[in-house]
Amino acid sequence: MKFILTDTDPQSKARAGIVKTDHGDIETPIFMPVGTAGSVKAVHQRELTYDVKAQIILGNTYHLYLRPGLDVLEKAGGLHKFNGWSKPILTDSGGYQVFSLAGTRKITEEGVVFKSHIDGSKHVFSPEGVMDIQRTIGADIIMAFDECTPYPCEFGYARNSMEMTHRWLKRCIARFDQTEGKYGYSQTLFPIVQGSVFKDLRKQSAEFIASCEREGNAIGGLSVGEPAEMMYEMTDMVTDILPKDKPRYLMGVGTPANILEGIALGVDMFDCVMPTRNARNGMLFTSEGIINIRNEKWKDDFSPIDTGINSYVSSFYSKAYLRHLTIAKEILAAQIASIHNLAFYLWLVGQAREKIKSGEFSAWKDQMVKKVSTRL
Amino acid sequence: MKFILTDTDPQSKARAGIVKTDHGDIETPIFMPVGTAGSVKAVHQRELTYDVKAQIILGNTYHLYLRPGLDVLEKAGGLHKFNGWSKPILTDSGGYQVFSLAGTRKITEEGVVFKSHIDGSKHVFSPEGVMDIQRTIGADIIMAFDECTPYPCEFGYARNSMEMTHRWLKRCIARFDQTEGKYGYSQTLFPIVQGSVFKDLRKQSAEFIASCEREGNAIGGLSVGEPAEMMYEMTDMVTDILPKDKPRYLMGVGTPANILEGIALGVDMFDCVMPTRNARNGMLFTSEGIINIRNEKWKDDFSPIDTGINSYVSSFYSKAYLRHLTIAKEILAAQIASIHNLAFYLWLVGQAREKIKSGEFSAWKDQMVKKVSTRL
Ligand SMILES: [Zn+2]
Ligand SMILES: [Zn+2]
Repeated sequence: MKFILTDTDPQSKARAGIVKTDHGDIETPIFMPVGTAGSVKAVHQRELTYDVKAQIILGNTYHLYLRPGLDVLEKAGGLHKFNGWSKPILTDSGGYQVFSLAGTRKITEEGVVFKSHIDGSKHVFSPEGVMDIQRTIGADIIMAFDECTPYPCEFGYARNSMEMTHRWLKRCIARFDQTEGKYGYSQTLFPIVQGSVFKDLRKQSAEFIASCEREGNAIGGLSVGEPAEMMYEMTDMVTDILPKDKPRYLMGVGTPANILEGIALGVDMFDCVMPTRNARNGMLFTSEGIINIRNEKWKDDFSPIDTGINSYVSSFYSKAYLRHLTIAKEILAAQIASIHNLAFYLWLVGQAREKIKSGEFSAWKDQMVKKVSTRL
Repeated sequence: MKFILTDTDPQSKARAGIVKTDHGDIETPIFMPVGTAGSVKAVHQRELTYDVKAQIILGNTYHLYLRPGLDVLEKAGGLHKFNGWSKPILTDSGGYQVFSLAGTRKITEEGVVFKSHIDGSKHVFSPEGVMDIQRTIGADIIMAFDECTPYPCEFGYARNSMEMTHRWLKRCIARFDQTEGKYGYSQTLFPIVQGSVFKDLRKQSAEFIASCEREGNAIGGLSVGEPAEMMYEMTDMVTDILPKDKPRYLMGVGTPANILEGIALGVDMFDCVMPTRNARNGMLFTSEGIINIRNEKWKDDFSPIDTGINSYVSSFYSKAYLRHLTIAKEILAAQIASIHNLAFYLWLVGQAREKIKSGEFSAWKDQMVKKVSTRL
């Protein structure tokens, strides 16, 4: 992987660049749709390419490890071959899902013992094991095995957790560097900054992560319930420390406004289930603001969902039709809304990129944050 | 509407033709995907056109009347404008659904009083009302209000029901002929032959329907649980009586084999929920036979779903990936399987049409009935 930083905004820390992978280039800042079990829910791969204009998608190691399982993925020749998505893929480490299985998992220095939510079977994730699993899944970008602390979180817990995450990172790096990609293309490992909402921990973690000198870095443990201002403050501190010449990935963020603020703070990559999950609940993000499509007011509004974002699906279907499908619980409602919301997210980061390139980002961002947060 | 009969098979009653409507031509024999509430479940309109290659879809009057309702449909300018499907649409009369609401509906000579399955509200469907409703929905082909008798059914019930259906048909015709299309294109009314599985009733009904001299005719009350041979026998009798120069629509049929046999008996149009409903349960119809995609044997079969039918989706995704999505309950599973099954049905009737035109239909049909009924 290579990162080329091409433009920086004079009034903020926003930047534009290109991440080069063996599966193609990613123009940053970028949003990455989440494809949990090897499918971005309700969206065809062809639609991801031509409607959403996704450049990279996520896969969840926990889900893929359990189903279809590593034997199938390896026989297929990796996830790209398995699901037919030929552009870059990033996988999380599975830590987030495993730690969420409260009551059925046990954390030790060695790793985490957990029970499958599908059949109750017992499994172990360790830093080494998770590197091997992600090698087998075949992601272009592999994430370190970390603990994402909850919010709120006591200082002592956050510190101990961060220190363990750092020890685990050393083991991840050792294992990753001793192994090779299985399918003939290269993979890269991103370490993750933790430290909850404590400035000194965040600083300490960011410095440690920077010192590992990997090809890209991630910021984890945010967007877990803390106030947005706190998330911005932590991100701001961390991006001051992480190297400028490497991409920065703010994990699990967020609303359109969160993403714009994150870009202003020097973040290059984002992912979130919000556009697809909220789509399935009838919440649309548009270039004019937020729509609850179940609302009576859209009943006979035959105007297109959103003509502002250059998406076929968003221009083709009307608000009234989408409302009808949503109320009638038709599967097509989830399909249309998911494509639309993702196309909007990709449009938004694309616009941000253009504005960074033309030097107009900061003023545009302030205006846009208001617009995309308006409830229509 | 106009029907041009272009070819007839020398060894069977199979025929090829063109139904001309104001929304375009339909090449027969044809299969019509069912779009219950104005959406063919899990399939985008664009996919219906380019992947499935549908030429006409169905809408269900009962569902559309309740939701989105006639006010919305009329304001939209009819169902075509509302859902963005610009090719022909056929609507059923709503009778089938209303009669299925056993316990909550009451049949009289005037019509049927029923309660909405959505909110329990009370409504009346009469022959006249149902003509007006379908005028408002804006279907190109409108179906008469009939009673579809269950199977088995006593002779006395079948005769009385058929006679009421005939009286209702006269009222449908009177109302239809007194009214006009609301959106500037013409609509046509198909009467429906009933008579359960009784030869003399079917004969009597077919003769009455033929005497009405409408632009097309339908055969109802079959594929409701009777043995396939009985359905073929009734269809054979009825198509001997219905005029040759008008399209014949066998309602609610059926399996791929049923459709091939129906074509051999002189039927031109078919509809059924089977390809989409079974798709959602993981059952695939392919050019090689029937697949239960949940079966372990497809776990690592990375071959395409079906390369024999010239469908992008069926060639792009593998059996193993579709199996994974099905087991993981991903929405995309329903999407892929629904497109595939519909594309297969449209491919099958398209092949039948070609074989009729080249005079090879009968031999091909016998071979194909076996093939499409094989369980892989
Ligand atoms: Zn999120
Ligand atoms: Zn059927």
